[in-house]
Amino acid sequence: MLRWLTAGESHGQALVAVLEGLPAGVQVTTDDVADALARRRLGYGRGARMKFERDEVTFIGGFRHGLSLGSPVAIQVGNTEWPKWEQVMSADPVDPDVLADLARNAPLTRPRPGHADLAGMQKYGFDEARPVLERASARETAARVALGEVAARFLRQAYGVTIVSHVVEIGTVKAPYGSIPTFEDVARLDEDPVRCLDAHASKAMVAEIDTAQKAGDTLGGVVEVVVDGLPPGLGSYVHWDRRLDSKLAGALMGIQAIKGVELGDGFELARTPGSQAHDEIVVDNGEVRRTSGRSGGTEGGMSTGETLRVRAAMKPIATVPRALRTIDTATGEAASAHHQRSDVCAVPAAGIVAEAMVALVLADASIEKFGGDSVAETSRNHKAYLAGLPSTIAAREWDQ
Amino acid sequence: MLRWLTAGESHGQALVAVLEGLPAGVQVTTDDVADALARRRLGYGRGARMKFERDEVTFIGGFRHGLSLGSPVAIQVGNTEWPKWEQVMSADPVDPDVLADLARNAPLTRPRPGHADLAGMQKYGFDEARPVLERASARETAARVALGEVAARFLRQAYGVTIVSHVVEIGTVKAPYGSIPTFEDVARLDEDPVRCLDAHASKAMVAEIDTAQKAGDTLGGVVEVVVDGLPPGLGSYVHWDRRLDSKLAGALMGIQAIKGVELGDGFELARTPGSQAHDEIVVDNGEVRRTSGRSGGTEGGMSTGETLRVRAAMKPIATVPRALRTIDTATGEAASAHHQRSDVCAVPAAGIVAEAMVALVLADASIEKFGGDSVAETSRNHKAYLAGLPSTIAAREWDQ
Amino acid sequence: MLRWLTAGESHGQALVAVLEGLPAGVQVTTDDVADALARRRLGYGRGARMKFERDEVTFIGGFRHGLSLGSPVAIQVGNTEWPKWEQVMSADPVDPDVLADLARNAPLTRPRPGHADLAGMQKYGFDEARPVLERASARETAARVALGEVAARFLRQAYGVTIVSHVVEIGTVKAPYGSIPTFEDVARLDEDPVRCLDAHASKAMVAEIDTAQKAGDTLGGVVEVVVDGLPPGLGSYVHWDRRLDSKLAGALMGIQAIKGVELGDGFELARTPGSQAHDEIVVDNGEVRRTSGRSGGTEGGMSTGETLRVRAAMKPIATVPRALRTIDTATGEAASAHHQRSDVCAVPAAGIVAEAMVALVLADASIEKFGGDSVAETSRNHKAYLAGLPSTIAAREWDQ
Amino acid sequence: MLRWLTAGESHGQALVAVLEGLPAGVQVTTDDVADALARRRLGYGRGARMKFERDEVTFIGGFRHGLSLGSPVAIQVGNTEWPKWEQVMSADPVDPDVLADLARNAPLTRPRPGHADLAGMQKYGFDEARPVLERASARETAARVALGEVAARFLRQAYGVTIVSHVVEIGTVKAPYGSIPTFEDVARLDEDPVRCLDAHASKAMVAEIDTAQKAGDTLGGVVEVVVDGLPPGLGSYVHWDRRLDSKLAGALMGIQAIKGVELGDGFELARTPGSQAHDEIVVDNGEVRRTSGRSGGTEGGMSTGETLRVRAAMKPIATVPRALRTIDTATGEAASAHHQRSDVCAVPAAGIVAEAMVALVLADASIEKFGGDSVAETSRNHKAYLAGLPSTIAAREWDQ
Repeated sequence: MLRWLTAGESHGQALVAVLEGLPAGVQVTTDDVADALARRRLGYGRGARMKFERDEVTFIGGFRHGLSLGSPVAIQVGNTEWPKWEQVMSADPVDPDVLADLARNAPLTRPRPGHADLAGMQKYGFDEARPVLERASARETAARVALGEVAARFLRQAYGVTIVSHVVEIGTVKAPYGSIPTFEDVARLDEDPVRCLDAHASKAMVAEIDTAQKAGDTLGGVVEVVVDGLPPGLGSYVHWDRRLDSKLAGALMGIQAIKGVELGDGFELARTPGSQAHDEIVVDNGEVRRTSGRSGGTEGGMSTGETLRVRAAMKPIATVPRALRTIDTATGEAASAHHQRSDVCAVPAAGIVAEAMVALVLADASIEKFGGDSVAETSRNHKAYLAGLPSTIAAREWDQ
Repeated sequence: MLRWLTAGESHGQALVAVLEGLPAGVQVTTDDVADALARRRLGYGRGARMKFERDEVTFIGGFRHGLSLGSPVAIQVGNTEWPKWEQVMSADPVDPDVLADLARNAPLTRPRPGHADLAGMQKYGFDEARPVLERASARETAARVALGEVAARFLRQAYGVTIVSHVVEIGTVKAPYGSIPTFEDVARLDEDPVRCLDAHASKAMVAEIDTAQKAGDTLGGVVEVVVDGLPPGLGSYVHWDRRLDSKLAGALMGIQAIKGVELGDGFELARTPGSQAHDEIVVDNGEVRRTSGRSGGTEGGMSTGETLRVRAAMKPIATVPRALRTIDTATGEAASAHHQRSDVCAVPAAGIVAEAMVALVLADASIEKFGGDSVAETSRNHKAYLAGLPSTIAAREWDQ
Repeated sequence: MLRWLTAGESHGQALVAVLEGLPAGVQVTTDDVADALARRRLGYGRGARMKFERDEVTFIGGFRHGLSLGSPVAIQVGNTEWPKWEQVMSADPVDPDVLADLARNAPLTRPRPGHADLAGMQKYGFDEARPVLERASARETAARVALGEVAARFLRQAYGVTIVSHVVEIGTVKAPYGSIPTFEDVARLDEDPVRCLDAHASKAMVAEIDTAQKAGDTLGGVVEVVVDGLPPGLGSYVHWDRRLDSKLAGALMGIQAIKGVELGDGFELARTPGSQAHDEIVVDNGEVRRTSGRSGGTEGGMSTGETLRVRAAMKPIATVPRALRTIDTATGEAASAHHQRSDVCAVPAAGIVAEAMVALVLADASIEKFGGDSVAETSRNHKAYLAGLPSTIAAREWDQ
Repeated sequence: MLRWLTAGESHGQALVAVLEGLPAGVQVTTDDVADALARRRLGYGRGARMKFERDEVTFIGGFRHGLSLGSPVAIQVGNTEWPKWEQVMSADPVDPDVLADLARNAPLTRPRPGHADLAGMQKYGFDEARPVLERASARETAARVALGEVAARFLRQAYGVTIVSHVVEIGTVKAPYGSIPTFEDVARLDEDPVRCLDAHASKAMVAEIDTAQKAGDTLGGVVEVVVDGLPPGLGSYVHWDRRLDSKLAGALMGIQAIKGVELGDGFELARTPGSQAHDEIVVDNGEVRRTSGRSGGTEGGMSTGETLRVRAAMKPIATVPRALRTIDTATGEAASAHHQRSDVCAVPAAGIVAEAMVALVLADASIEKFGGDSVAETSRNHKAYLAGLPSTIAAREWDQ
């Protein structure tokens, strides 16, 4: 069982992520994680903060000399802007007179529509939104990406599983159906301004972002995570919360601003007649294969051994330059929402976060099936499982 | 914390569902649950089994004289066809000679595309699909509906929360956007052949089912669950797996055949510019309200106090009359898939199951926020929370 | 991950136990479980109910033809006295006039010291103790013993692990230190009136029970569970709640009336100087061995591969024939406690329940380490782990 | 639900502890936590490291201006010796030539009896014990004490609950039965060399430590945690793992070197006849009270509203100056165990760790019963519960 918690406020000293249950012997360095965090900053349409913020990565626990120890992994992601926020976000009490002089410390009493602000104030009994937005902010996803990189490397090293994401929709532009990347496309995708595999669609997406920016507007979109190398039988049909589909959906819908998730063709699959909606089973070169991937690589809540494909829909950024109506909670009067940052579109970054969540879910599901306290042990169990499948239902052998 | 497990095979003696953590004092009878199970059988396009199967409901534990005891609830849903299956599905060993003569006991070695059959055999090491399909079957959802009815009544009695579902798409037919039922529409919906609120769409759906049936095909669709009466602040932004959106998505995607989930406008929201995508905040008659419901009644992973709206996409039934290609696992040869039942469309029933899953998630989230070991105690805490909200952010007061 | 829930009231229709996560291919029959339940009735000093009550065992789900299916196991243990209680313990409402005439239905308003009665009424808001004692009763342990038998057979079949318990103290009588049974002693222990391995101590215990009975008193005692065949490395030091000691202590202290738990020499170990308190490590015949078993077979929260030994202290039965002081909650006046049954000593039965809890903990810990969805798979992983240990730290090979 | 994870190695850069689920509005400062950590260093018989090590406390997340935010709490406890260990314990790879020259980096191939060393190497596949002992070390308990202080302050501020521990046995010396401290005794206990309430026993304990030190030996002992101010009804009898006794036992047995746990009189209670073993119930001044505290303040797995009392037995320190027999895992030859530190007795410190674990368990149980996302809300629910108890079963009103 893999457990993990993240902590830290957006303008706090640092984020911390702890991952408990990772086997020993996984090779990861702080550079690997810093590179992953840099990928989270990719994408056309990001505002200023993405550029001047830099991520300082420290492994506090769980690794020694480049290898995981089996003990809990703790990764800290520093905030280089901390000196500016040291008083406003101090954990310990600060002299009220000092705080009174700080503009940054002014209470945020105009909760922004589309954000956690208002419901958060109601829930926790705050009289302003600062304590809410500090934690609800997408900054927290850096902690997930850090852990996701560890999980992804574990999957690759132990089982040969690879993960890649790409952007399939921004605003009204859609990439053509069926254009699915592999892990070898990562570098190319990371260089594309919107992390879209299709050059034509990429251009159209960039244009749509430009238009939105001029109009003082923001955009959402859809990302897809693609996983190769999975064995059949991760997840299970025996109980609802063991279904891989359920775990993936919960993980992706747990990302800030995600409002929809689908496996494979998802909602479109629901509109397709049954005769054309399922993936037929054939034997191909001694391996059992599916002739198509409409279901997204799961059946009955289990991986089938084919490519896994899952999509997440991100709503447009809620901090809209054109101010939205809200109230001032100090007075109860109508007001305009605070406008704090200037990103137009965060969809490319959401793909990186989605990869991380998928990696964590699959690492957990793999450990559940294969057990093992070291990469060597879990990998040995994985190989023995595949080797032990009867020849008539031998699973696809993935190139590595 | 609410925990629950279901058990039982499709043609086994019975299903059993256990719900642990329900407060004392919830009023539910076996008739209430039997009525809920009858709703699961509703819908145009269902096959024979739905009609001749009857659900015998027994409360084994957790209730006395019509009230929950605080102890674990155990509900048994009997299988009236058990005598036919007593030997084939016997838990204890059966004389092999007896089994050899039973056609029903013949090994199922042609795994059906779109089902758990093949991956299940690979995962668990079975040489036929019977042990897989017995548990992967949608029959298991009866156990969830039973518990969901208990959860729904708890929500209604403790907090005045009501839940209703309706069908918004079948095949290519969509109900008009924005037609949202309330709890008062339940009876009318249950009488509609496809549980669709819009009469015109309902007719078109029925026609599409008829066409599919003639063509030897099957259909999927989309259901929406609508919840009124929620307070603001269920779920939380503080950790991904506390987000209500995440919990709802995991629960709905954990239903058999569900391949997509969205909150509010979901994927369409991702295609809408930010200026038109969020729900503005106003004060209306002393209550803080949203002017629209695009986000589906959650912000930052929390209920906002407005109507909650979540949708699930069901793929078409995988047992297609026109046989799909598969293999015979006994021989490794190509084969046609078994065809075992004749439903054309199970989307109306999926709505009932989705209601149940949503009820369980919301009951758990409510208990998490309000605590309490009896309906009286949790209800008192709920009322005190709403009464304690500052007047400038007073939540909507729901009519009950 | 193994999850399990029990449900059912003491005088209800039945108990139900659900076990989720058990691999496929475990051989268990209803007779096996019925035999285990019969062992729970053993022991000198039990009252009438133990004799006339008979346990009817039904496997509702999870097994077919004698083998587990990988799907959730559901076991029902019927209550043969149900006809007498059908109205008093009816789940559905009963005509108040009918109830008014039933002596059995009289409200229990004199909460018994040493029982859950009073705190249960306060917690759940009941105006009498019936709803509390029905669930708090030791009758519930039958559900645990049923699941424990399944877990124990899984451990034996998959890993060659065996479990036995014995009584080491009753009242003031202690069995001699160091007399430790193996699985081969089970039959002999089950025949002993107090399940004590030492004949002399057994006689003294029986005499003490006789004396207590004459004096209108009750007795507690201590049981020890002994496990052979474990590999090194179940549980872990990496997080407190992964420690096997923690899991065992939590499980045993979760049994009704247990007030103390110790691993190995436990409290006595705390009184021993360090030079004599630890188990030295030697190589014996190519195997790494400990020269003693003071720590109870765990170090650093992990099994060492030696015999595991854990003890639980049971307080004397709280329903004492000589009435204890209490209050009448209907009036607030002083009163004498209800006296409902006549057991003098339940310690021998507690050993059987303790075996069950230990089996469940160890089955879970084994699945965590070895993974696997079938007995064949998890057993293969277990063997490969032991075979893969370097020769200098090769673990003890257990005779099977 | 309160979740928490700790991370960090003994000689690593820092320990990190994350606590998720704490309500907003708890007042804690870094000084409060540093003071708690200083208490962990108390006690006669500690070696050098305890003195030169200092704990640097940083709140990374979860607090602002002295108040908890409802978001996850992250506390970092720095290691002032880190510069000495920077290369040996570097998370990233280090030049092998550099490492080869460092005596501190020499592989530890003589696993110490009584430690996690050997089983840890077997479990995780390590060829030396360094990766094991770095995490298995008692240093990790600093992280728990940090979180425990947060939990304890929450309990005090929200519900008026206070926690204190004291030493009741060291080696063969026992404090007299029935001498039970209250929170007001904390300062006095902290000043006593062995944190024993009884002056006479304290002197004898100190003498026993002196004797052991001269003999090159080590000592264990027993600590007791005492909690005042609890309401009745925390925990529950309805399921084994909801029993407060179970949670407390699991938490205390999850502390390094603890081998026994008991509630109230525990093992002695098992040796007492029933007529004298239970706590009678009386009405005293309008409050329902128990006349004694033998059960330790729980009945049926629930707090009764009386003083809670739980004990933990710590085995003697396993690093014994007189070397114990072991093997060299590099060669398979017999060897003497590494001897790394010189504490004689760590029992007083264990009491501080035990307080922390008890605080975390009770905070979780309180949040489960009373819900609430802020101190104000959960406190209001707590008060309403007590006020709502019928007058005939009104709980004890604790002085605050």
